[in-house]
Amino acid sequence: MSVLISPLAESLPTFIQQHNYSAVAVLVDTNTKRFCYPAIKNFLPKHKIFTIPAGEQHKNLATCETVWQGLTNAQFDRHALLINLGGGVIGDLGGFCAATYKRGIDFIQIPTTLLSQVDASVGGKLGIDFHGFKNHIGVFKLPEAVLIDTAFFQTLPELELRSGFAEIVKHCLIADGAKWNIIRRRDLHDQDWNDLVAHSVEIKKNIVGQDPTERGIRKILNFGHTLGHALETHFLADPKRRLLHGEAIAAGMIAEAFIAHRKGMIQAGLLEQIEEYLFAVYGRVTIADTDLEPVLALTLQDKKNRNGQVRMALLDGPGSCAYDVPVTKAEMSRALEYYRT
Amino acid sequence: MSVLISPLAESLPTFIQQHNYSAVAVLVDTNTKRFCYPAIKNFLPKHKIFTIPAGEQHKNLATCETVWQGLTNAQFDRHALLINLGGGVIGDLGGFCAATYKRGIDFIQIPTTLLSQVDASVGGKLGIDFHGFKNHIGVFKLPEAVLIDTAFFQTLPELELRSGFAEIVKHCLIADGAKWNIIRRRDLHDQDWNDLVAHSVEIKKNIVGQDPTERGIRKILNFGHTLGHALETHFLADPKRRLLHGEAIAAGMIAEAFIAHRKGMIQAGLLEQIEEYLFAVYGRVTIADTDLEPVLALTLQDKKNRNGQVRMALLDGPGSCAYDVPVTKAEMSRALEYYRT
Repeated sequence: MSVLISPLAESLPTFIQQHNYSAVAVLVDTNTKRFCYPAIKNFLPKHKIFTIPAGEQHKNLATCETVWQGLTNAQFDRHALLINLGGGVIGDLGGFCAATYKRGIDFIQIPTTLLSQVDASVGGKLGIDFHGFKNHIGVFKLPEAVLIDTAFFQTLPELELRSGFAEIVKHCLIADGAKWNIIRRRDLHDQDWNDLVAHSVEIKKNIVGQDPTERGIRKILNFGHTLGHALETHFLADPKRRLLHGEAIAAGMIAEAFIAHRKGMIQAGLLEQIEEYLFAVYGRVTIADTDLEPVLALTLQDKKNRNGQVRMALLDGPGSCAYDVPVTKAEMSRALEYYRT
Repeated sequence: MSVLISPLAESLPTFIQQHNYSAVAVLVDTNTKRFCYPAIKNFLPKHKIFTIPAGEQHKNLATCETVWQGLTNAQFDRHALLINLGGGVIGDLGGFCAATYKRGIDFIQIPTTLLSQVDASVGGKLGIDFHGFKNHIGVFKLPEAVLIDTAFFQTLPELELRSGFAEIVKHCLIADGAKWNIIRRRDLHDQDWNDLVAHSVEIKKNIVGQDPTERGIRKILNFGHTLGHALETHFLADPKRRLLHGEAIAAGMIAEAFIAHRKGMIQAGLLEQIEEYLFAVYGRVTIADTDLEPVLALTLQDKKNRNGQVRMALLDGPGSCAYDVPVTKAEMSRALEYYRT
């Protein structure tokens, strides 16, 4: 799989010319149809366009059914291509639909948000939410290509930047301590995005290449995500308190860095750096007493667990991360308490 | 992946002991729960049992949802095992559910019918029907093991034997002309089933091993299936005229052998042998004038097509088969006419 970071005016026509697809479709949501599709439509041969509603709440089986039905109605055969143009929901759901339609047709990812460019688009994790559990049904399959154009996200609102930036921070913390020391000295608005996107993609590709189906080292990409996902899922049910993915992961990284420190895996100085920077960029998520139990319960559904025991990816230094570290409910509870106060 | 043909009292405990699963579940339908589960339950550690309704009409997304929900409620993690105990529906659907639950948990197939033992259990094709199209949504993934015990199907009604036998005939016709000359001289009841199951599994494993995702040679396993599947799908809608898989494939093999003969690929003698034997075992499916157009239209949805053109696997000798042969609607129409008269 190739990841190309360049203007789509170059990468997309080249990809299409190098392949011989029997048909092409573009999957968009109501936002990317309006704001992103016009930027690519002229680089495509004759194609169908499938539109789904925007938002994580539509990342479900019912939406998959509409995509499968669209492919079926258009009589797409196994030699067709699906282009997923959008953020993480489009990439995850569209990829899953393509990977399962007639047991798999080709697909490419054109991620349009910072978050999907540095995270979801690389690594082949596809899937949908199921009865409240995130990415609960899915497969691992790499796209034929990932085409990244940073012009897309630079027109997006700031909250999209904040959402994606947490994954960039994570990549630095788990794999590149020197880069962490660069970004943490800069405000969100002073970052060099082209450089950071390329850097994050490189780190993620490298880790995923060593362990595509997450049997080992790939688990370090979950740093901040055990508690982060639990927080994100918990607040999803309440529209007023819903979190950005980046906000949830930032909170998860602080809490999990605290656990790593308590276990003697990282020094107090690194924990303080992480806290200080992430609170400055993301603020503090308000977690009420009544939120604690449900959030802890959600960690039991985490895909990294074994025999009902939570296992985390935990930092063991700046730019270094361990995985499969058993963590007790009491340790998580203390970490959330620490985060709150 | 290993395929073991031996009593389950030996193969199943051995498999379980060689692995270290966090949890085990058995998927059955209402029939295999009653007739097959008692034969294996004592060889299993503590386990859950999930029961789905019997029948192809339940091989759909709604049934998958109940299986996914069962796995979720039981808090199965990624290190769990699903044992699919039943015919093709259980294996295809259960395999698909396992391959997609948390992006994939281990599963083994214990096929209980002749058809599933010689066909569905080997080859990693998993999936479900979707809005009337057979196996329309699915993935390719090999099970950890296939455990075959021929004691199961020998207690089943004759129509189960007839249904599975067509795939055995197909394997001989496409890959072993000498074996074809043995089986065609014997009545259905005089066949050596242990030998034939092992023979079919060996042929299928060999072909699938060369081409797991059906880019080339694996397509020869579709001999008889382009028109056979179309007939099966067409008559599925009418309970009174519904066909056994074997009946449909037998009809498909006769019609497609006719096409091969008309194209000069096989001699008249082989066509006559095929016709004579398959009509004797399966009788003749009644195809009305009004059935012809819908059946031909269904072939356009065949997964082997390219650019809307039907491509078939066609015999080019006894024990030999070509694939990707373009076939026109007129040729298929003539073949169905020939079959009918």
